[in-house]
Amino acid sequence: MTRIKLTVQYKGTNYSGWQSQINGVAVQDVLEKALGRYYGDITPPRVYAAGRTDVGVHAEGQTVHFDTDRQTDVYKLCLGLNTLLPPDVAATAAETVPDGFDARRDAVSKTYRYKLYVSPTRRPLLDETHAQLYHMPSEEKMRAAARLLTGTHDFACFQKKGSNLCGTVRTINSYEVERHGQDVFHFVVNGNAFLYNMVRITAGAVVAAGIGRLTEKDIVKMLEGESRHVKTMPARGLTLEKVFY
Amino acid sequence: MTRIKLTVQYKGTNYSGWQSQINGVAVQDVLEKALGRYYGDITPPRVYAAGRTDVGVHAEGQTVHFDTDRQTDVYKLCLGLNTLLPPDVAATAAETVPDGFDARRDAVSKTYRYKLYVSPTRRPLLDETHAQLYHMPSEEKMRAAARLLTGTHDFACFQKKGSNLCGTVRTINSYEVERHGQDVFHFVVNGNAFLYNMVRITAGAVVAAGIGRLTEKDIVKMLEGESRHVKTMPARGLTLEKVFY
Repeated sequence: MTRIKLTVQYKGTNYSGWQSQINGVAVQDVLEKALGRYYGDITPPRVYAAGRTDVGVHAEGQTVHFDTDRQTDVYKLCLGLNTLLPPDVAATAAETVPDGFDARRDAVSKTYRYKLYVSPTRRPLLDETHAQLYHMPSEEKMRAAARLLTGTHDFACFQKKGSNLCGTVRTINSYEVERHGQDVFHFVVNGNAFLYNMVRITAGAVVAAGIGRLTEKDIVKMLEGESRHVKTMPARGLTLEKVFY
Repeated sequence: MTRIKLTVQYKGTNYSGWQSQINGVAVQDVLEKALGRYYGDITPPRVYAAGRTDVGVHAEGQTVHFDTDRQTDVYKLCLGLNTLLPPDVAATAAETVPDGFDARRDAVSKTYRYKLYVSPTRRPLLDETHAQLYHMPSEEKMRAAARLLTGTHDFACFQKKGSNLCGTVRTINSYEVERHGQDVFHFVVNGNAFLYNMVRITAGAVVAAGIGRLTEKDIVKMLEGESRHVKTMPARGLTLEKVFY
């Protein structure tokens, strides 16, 4: 048996998320099907990902592992898979790893990128991978909010309602606000682990701070457990950029 | 009668190009249909564009003009049109212009951006708007080629075969090679007018120079009319960025 680590890039627009489920087609489904066809196995290998991504969320560097009994040339595997995968999914790297490697458990940290553009009118060339803001936020206030979120905090107020209520302490190693050109912003967030919808909700808080709807004090209160309404930013702006081991 | 200038952004992936034709759906078709619905006219206004874009080519700032007898609030027009247009087409600006304004004839210059990424494996997040190169080209050699192409030349060897044989002198005002991060290049080309496929063929020459398949001397010879095989780069990497008046 050989364990293989694959790096996978996908545009999540047309998928029901990473994980197989009853309804819709998941990225996991098409990847497993392609692996089955590549190896000529009726039962394709099961793949395990570093992190599930929601419906509409993209990945530049999702990482997965799977096991196979077949002799595998990892370079050929990558190229072969890409002829079997649909245009919006591709393997970008493959390597053999020790049997004990686990794509999720062994991940030391993950970087997510949340992208948005500012414009009163839609931008078809950005819409699939960016959220839209109608008014220019204050870059300075967004950076201040991002600084407050950095570090180890109880992020209970920054997860989807109805998610777990205990064990909500997480560490955000860095939360950068990048400006690209006149009207595009990227939030680049690296952390050891994330609660459900945490990146999209922190992005909502940073944006709310930028347009003056939340003060720094409000954010501190949220980190202290005092709930406050913050918009969950749309899935399409989010990309899982890289998983670190 | 009022003449209106519209700026239009579109992802060309799913269109048969800008211009209406017998087969396929053109961007012009969906824009005229949306204008007809906006004004409640059975016969929609005819729109005239600054430049036709080929099948699969995108536009960040295509410019068009059309005439209407209806009272028009240009701000409402923009927002209204965007609710009637499909997700991959949008109006980003609208203004009233003098009756004599012509989107094509009055254009002083146009800027096109040709994007490509370097990777042995596909990149689904870039594929719709970038061409793929498998090996890293020399940035320096590409810049040298771009410099040679800049200026007023007879671009007869840089147009689609079978196009016009006389009147092939054009001026490229600037031809910049931009590097974005590790493995993405943009060619930003501004010129007064372009022959058919000229941007994609010059991009092919710059890439060929970058990978050592064309020397500077070869490019000079092409500019002197000595034909040489140069690849026309794929449509999907090309974006009409801006039209200047």
